[in-house]
Amino acid sequence: MNFFTLQWQDSSVVMIDQRKLPREEIYLSFRTPEEVGQAIKDMVVRGAPAIGVAAAFGMALAAQNSEAPNHEVFFKEMDEAAKMLISQRPTAVNLSWAVQRIQNFYRSKQDLPLLTLQNMILEEALAIFEEDCNMCIDMGVHGSELIKLGNSYLTHCNAGALATAGRGTALSVFYEAKDQHKKFKVYSCETRPFLQGARLTCWELMKNNVDVTLITDNMAAHMMQKGKIHGVVVGSDRIVANGDVANKIGTYGLAVLAKAHQIPFYVVAPTSTIDLETQEGSQVEIEERPIEEVTHFFGTASAPENVKVFNPAFDITPHDLVTAIVTEKGILYPPFKESLKKIK
Amino acid sequence: MNFFTLQWQDSSVVMIDQRKLPREEIYLSFRTPEEVGQAIKDMVVRGAPAIGVAAAFGMALAAQNSEAPNHEVFFKEMDEAAKMLISQRPTAVNLSWAVQRIQNFYRSKQDLPLLTLQNMILEEALAIFEEDCNMCIDMGVHGSELIKLGNSYLTHCNAGALATAGRGTALSVFYEAKDQHKKFKVYSCETRPFLQGARLTCWELMKNNVDVTLITDNMAAHMMQKGKIHGVVVGSDRIVANGDVANKIGTYGLAVLAKAHQIPFYVVAPTSTIDLETQEGSQVEIEERPIEEVTHFFGTASAPENVKVFNPAFDITPHDLVTAIVTEKGILYPPFKESLKKIK
Repeated sequence: MNFFTLQWQDSSVVMIDQRKLPREEIYLSFRTPEEVGQAIKDMVVRGAPAIGVAAAFGMALAAQNSEAPNHEVFFKEMDEAAKMLISQRPTAVNLSWAVQRIQNFYRSKQDLPLLTLQNMILEEALAIFEEDCNMCIDMGVHGSELIKLGNSYLTHCNAGALATAGRGTALSVFYEAKDQHKKFKVYSCETRPFLQGARLTCWELMKNNVDVTLITDNMAAHMMQKGKIHGVVVGSDRIVANGDVANKIGTYGLAVLAKAHQIPFYVVAPTSTIDLETQEGSQVEIEERPIEEVTHFFGTASAPENVKVFNPAFDITPHDLVTAIVTEKGILYPPFKESLKKIK
Repeated sequence: MNFFTLQWQDSSVVMIDQRKLPREEIYLSFRTPEEVGQAIKDMVVRGAPAIGVAAAFGMALAAQNSEAPNHEVFFKEMDEAAKMLISQRPTAVNLSWAVQRIQNFYRSKQDLPLLTLQNMILEEALAIFEEDCNMCIDMGVHGSELIKLGNSYLTHCNAGALATAGRGTALSVFYEAKDQHKKFKVYSCETRPFLQGARLTCWELMKNNVDVTLITDNMAAHMMQKGKIHGVVVGSDRIVANGDVANKIGTYGLAVLAKAHQIPFYVVAPTSTIDLETQEGSQVEIEERPIEEVTHFFGTASAPENVKVFNPAFDITPHDLVTAIVTEKGILYPPFKESLKKIK
């Protein structure tokens, strides 16, 4: 990768401003958990695993910045930061997963002096960062087995380096296949309304010399009908116990279309995305985002003033439309209820 | 309708500039067939029936402006204008249908004095305009039978007043149902890349007090999964002999999704859209449009420079995904090969 999504530098979290891509490559610095929370909400950083790492760094900032006189006050401050961070985006499980991991960590170390604990929290956050990088590599290695010579693959949203600390989930599969000198093509759905496909996926694939062609979301069916798509490869924000997959709005439609055209549908996600507490997809809260994402492009209105708008950010793909789930521990096949439980 | 799409005024064609909607309601005047051709190409006017009427007016302008000394030169000029007009957009059959109707008209009247013929060509163009208005009303009346109390209908692109001389094809069904005081809702797909749904359909439905909600194209599947869509109602640019339907890119995907969710899929189009010469959809030429429609919004880039883009303007919906075709002469049901031949 010749850029980075987020990093810990000195006493701050540095993130590429994904709202400015692909036109500008700007890195922003955040020094408080509140600033990190706002960056998550505003989608400076997005993508389930990257949000998790950002939140872990947010917790590290809370620990570093704390002037608490004792453990009690310190834990109260940390728990408040945790609550604030988790509340920024409701759908991705990685956010609460990462924050809770930090919480479990400091709760299990109550005997240590505060200063030691503060530093160890940063180390734990850095461990989450590094694990994420390694998981990306492992998902790529496992998933690359599914990429066949000369085939074309459709991806949606951005499940790439920009969605993780490492080289991505779905896109890591493409990077690994390219490293293996396989020839293949990628089609990227632009992914309305936030255009992560056009802005982010095309940008990072082009930057890493992967052959990518941009289409609008509503062209996917036509491409499948013409025999130009041999597989769909997407990430996920949450995979629940029965294998239902929450992911960027539009994913479910692609899964239905893939099935109708007998094309395999692959989901690539680290095991931290698996949520065995939730039994089925219908129980996942779907975030609704501001209507301006739909009605305006870069400040210019594309729809009449006061038009009614519906803007769900995610949808649920039922497990029976999923061919396989690629994790850092290997590829899972149906019945997912069993394979997910076994791997988690 | 409290606006008009195109009209003959004095010696010119006046059209609403659809590229400026919904932000500005501007009417432009065209005085030569070349100007009309350019307006068709640039999508000042779009929508298969409206393009047909515009082209007929373009032929009337060619006739009016002619200073040909004799019939031979006049016919040569007219045939050249016809060729130029037809070449502007390849997919909609109404364009060539309207131009050829004018051509057949003057070829059958070779005995008349030139001045008489010139005036009669304008009258023929005005007849095409009026017939289009009447067909819209009749499609609305027939199609309104399909609209059920309390249901919600998804439409794509703009098959409305802005796509015709009258009150539209698919949207005429909604206008008629509203005139009958039926309660129902409409969801409008924004229709990337040209945003006809967001810009035009929402604008004209709101202007006529029809309850409309805007969604991005990739939300349609989610809305169907949630049981919020009870029917899909779209227009068409060409219906071929076996019932395959060419329409705006994204239509085919909606048809596949509708079938998967057991939702009826209705096509509304005048019989002038039916092309019995073409046997099946795969034989229809699909126009590819400039890549900037995909990569830029109102001049701002949404994708990296030099990204590869595919931008087909239409797709083909196979006849077996179509529940019914509504025409000005009545509703057609499968097998379409027979019902289309009978009605044409």
